[in-house]
Amino acid sequence: MLDPNAGNQKNPPQVAGPLPPGSTIGILGSGQLGRMLALAGARLGLKSHIYADASGPAFDVAATHTVGGFDDMAALARFGGSVDVVTYEFENVPVAAAEALQKIVAVRPGPRALEVSQDRLIEKQFISALGVPVAPFMPIASAADIGPAMLELGGPAILKTRRLGYDGKGQVSVASADRAAGAFDAIGRAPAVLEKRVAFTREVSVLVVRAVDGTLAYYDCPENEHRDGILHRSTVPSPLGAADVAQAQAIAGRIATALAYVGVLAVELFHFADRKTDRLAVNEIAPRVHNSGHWTMDACAISQFENHMRAVAGWPLGSTARHSDAEMINLIGAEANAWHGLAAEPGAALHLYGKREARDGRKMGHVNRLQPRR
Amino acid sequence: MLDPNAGNQKNPPQVAGPLPPGSTIGILGSGQLGRMLALAGARLGLKSHIYADASGPAFDVAATHTVGGFDDMAALARFGGSVDVVTYEFENVPVAAAEALQKIVAVRPGPRALEVSQDRLIEKQFISALGVPVAPFMPIASAADIGPAMLELGGPAILKTRRLGYDGKGQVSVASADRAAGAFDAIGRAPAVLEKRVAFTREVSVLVVRAVDGTLAYYDCPENEHRDGILHRSTVPSPLGAADVAQAQAIAGRIATALAYVGVLAVELFHFADRKTDRLAVNEIAPRVHNSGHWTMDACAISQFENHMRAVAGWPLGSTARHSDAEMINLIGAEANAWHGLAAEPGAALHLYGKREARDGRKMGHVNRLQPRR
Repeated sequence: MLDPNAGNQKNPPQVAGPLPPGSTIGILGSGQLGRMLALAGARLGLKSHIYADASGPAFDVAATHTVGGFDDMAALARFGGSVDVVTYEFENVPVAAAEALQKIVAVRPGPRALEVSQDRLIEKQFISALGVPVAPFMPIASAADIGPAMLELGGPAILKTRRLGYDGKGQVSVASADRAAGAFDAIGRAPAVLEKRVAFTREVSVLVVRAVDGTLAYYDCPENEHRDGILHRSTVPSPLGAADVAQAQAIAGRIATALAYVGVLAVELFHFADRKTDRLAVNEIAPRVHNSGHWTMDACAISQFENHMRAVAGWPLGSTARHSDAEMINLIGAEANAWHGLAAEPGAALHLYGKREARDGRKMGHVNRLQPRR
Repeated sequence: MLDPNAGNQKNPPQVAGPLPPGSTIGILGSGQLGRMLALAGARLGLKSHIYADASGPAFDVAATHTVGGFDDMAALARFGGSVDVVTYEFENVPVAAAEALQKIVAVRPGPRALEVSQDRLIEKQFISALGVPVAPFMPIASAADIGPAMLELGGPAILKTRRLGYDGKGQVSVASADRAAGAFDAIGRAPAVLEKRVAFTREVSVLVVRAVDGTLAYYDCPENEHRDGILHRSTVPSPLGAADVAQAQAIAGRIATALAYVGVLAVELFHFADRKTDRLAVNEIAPRVHNSGHWTMDACAISQFENHMRAVAGWPLGSTARHSDAEMINLIGAEANAWHGLAAEPGAALHLYGKREARDGRKMGHVNRLQPRR
């Protein structure tokens, strides 16, 4: 198991001067998050160079792009040598790629954030070791582990692959121990964790940004609603009281600091409104800008994307204050066909990602609906 | 003289369906306005193709760019054939280039807006003929015209070249008729207008956006302060009362409609706070997004840049409502060297244009300072 304090003690973040305007930020990944990062960097006079294994919507807005594999060490080295810092838009960047790049140029957030967040078991152990609650869990190596684990957890559970799960993929409900073999087959017989199904009131998230000098700033906590395992709506303010918001932010700050993190980190939490203590437990973390922070593009002077680029470039963080109440609705697949009506809606800011094909389940855009602060 | 109603009556705007997301907007000009247009289009999933006679900061954020002369009809034709609509970021695009493009693809706003705004004399005659006040003026063809014109105008005046003046260039004060020859030399002995120096209280502007279907929308009127002939500060709200704001917007709407305009049009006005009637007179118009509207990037859900792109693409206009009070300060030349301090300022949104060299008088960026609405 990883020592949760190792990031701080053995690998202090590189503190160098801020990169001047005109510098180039290397971004691993060409999806919509890379695209919105590149657009936010451009506001600040920062160039972007996208590196990805396939063309994507970020290519259209970046000064430079490279198509290369994440195992092509020669291409990665050329990329690393041509940029001033490297960041990433998705958590499944191979750790070896990030480590190779780090020998050439600063990688922010560092490979450690990838290592922890790529493996659900390591992630849960890391967070628990910080004294932060998570849903009760047990490691699963084979179908035979599931029965005893369910007994230990004491009720219905969810079996989740340790690696490469996202948007509800790689997970399956397990109602009782006699379904163990089928469940293990359903997730491809991969190493997994069994997580107790917890009766939470709602899901919320924290978008925390940590600067190179360790400064932390937090956006307001959105409440998140999912459909078919994919984020559907994020709303600020959430019904969380001030004490719960402060607690959620403190948890996110503790995780970011323990990872010696630089940039925006998303921490998804379960909220238990009927409990007296332990009213929050971490569901999972994402070492990147996050879909549940897209409302910051229109409801804050400085968005999560700009603050990530500021942190990565060693700049001072911008204000995370929210000037408006907001609701973010994802446009999934054919939902984006409603773009014309959404564009005409007063008080709505429409964002489309420039993807060619509106496949089922594909994130095509989002709409932020603004209201004056209540 | 141009018939101010000709645009409406003889050349009705092309009303076609909206361009779908993924379409390409051709933009003539590679400066910061083209850059911010391309960034705004990207939010909507629209691609940009920049055409300019030299590389510029817009190239770094556009899907495609072409370096070509505005007299290179073959290159222009290739460009026009590769995009879905053409717009421009500066008013000195040669009318012949816009007319040639218009045979291939819709040009929005049309060449007529260029024709009118490229020549101060035609512009003033056009606006006067709409019944809109301008500062008293006389055409000047030679130094000998200046003395009689000053007599006619009755006081100190400003001599301005008819063509190619901007940011205070191409103009000179004339205190008395005996300075006529020197003044005419100072502006390069070019055809000019002599404009009476008027004792205005303040300068304001209207950013009006007109959709393909003729719908008009207005941003709030900023008060504008200049230094050395270059815009220094724009502030919203301005001290104008509601009746004056309504009058300023009505003037801008009349001009946009008479030009059969599509996109954002900027109308700069003088405000005479001590007058009972004619409290506003047009100084000049710019057929494009405008520096005095840069605060809309952070104080409105939909910026002037996005609304220009929406109009040009035939989309519904977005809300022009302002959620915050704002002050926009231009960063000219070496002022942009203060970027680090500005980035750290709470409530400030910094914008840098990615220009390599901070030459004197060059617009390098701007900062928008936000306050909750009073």
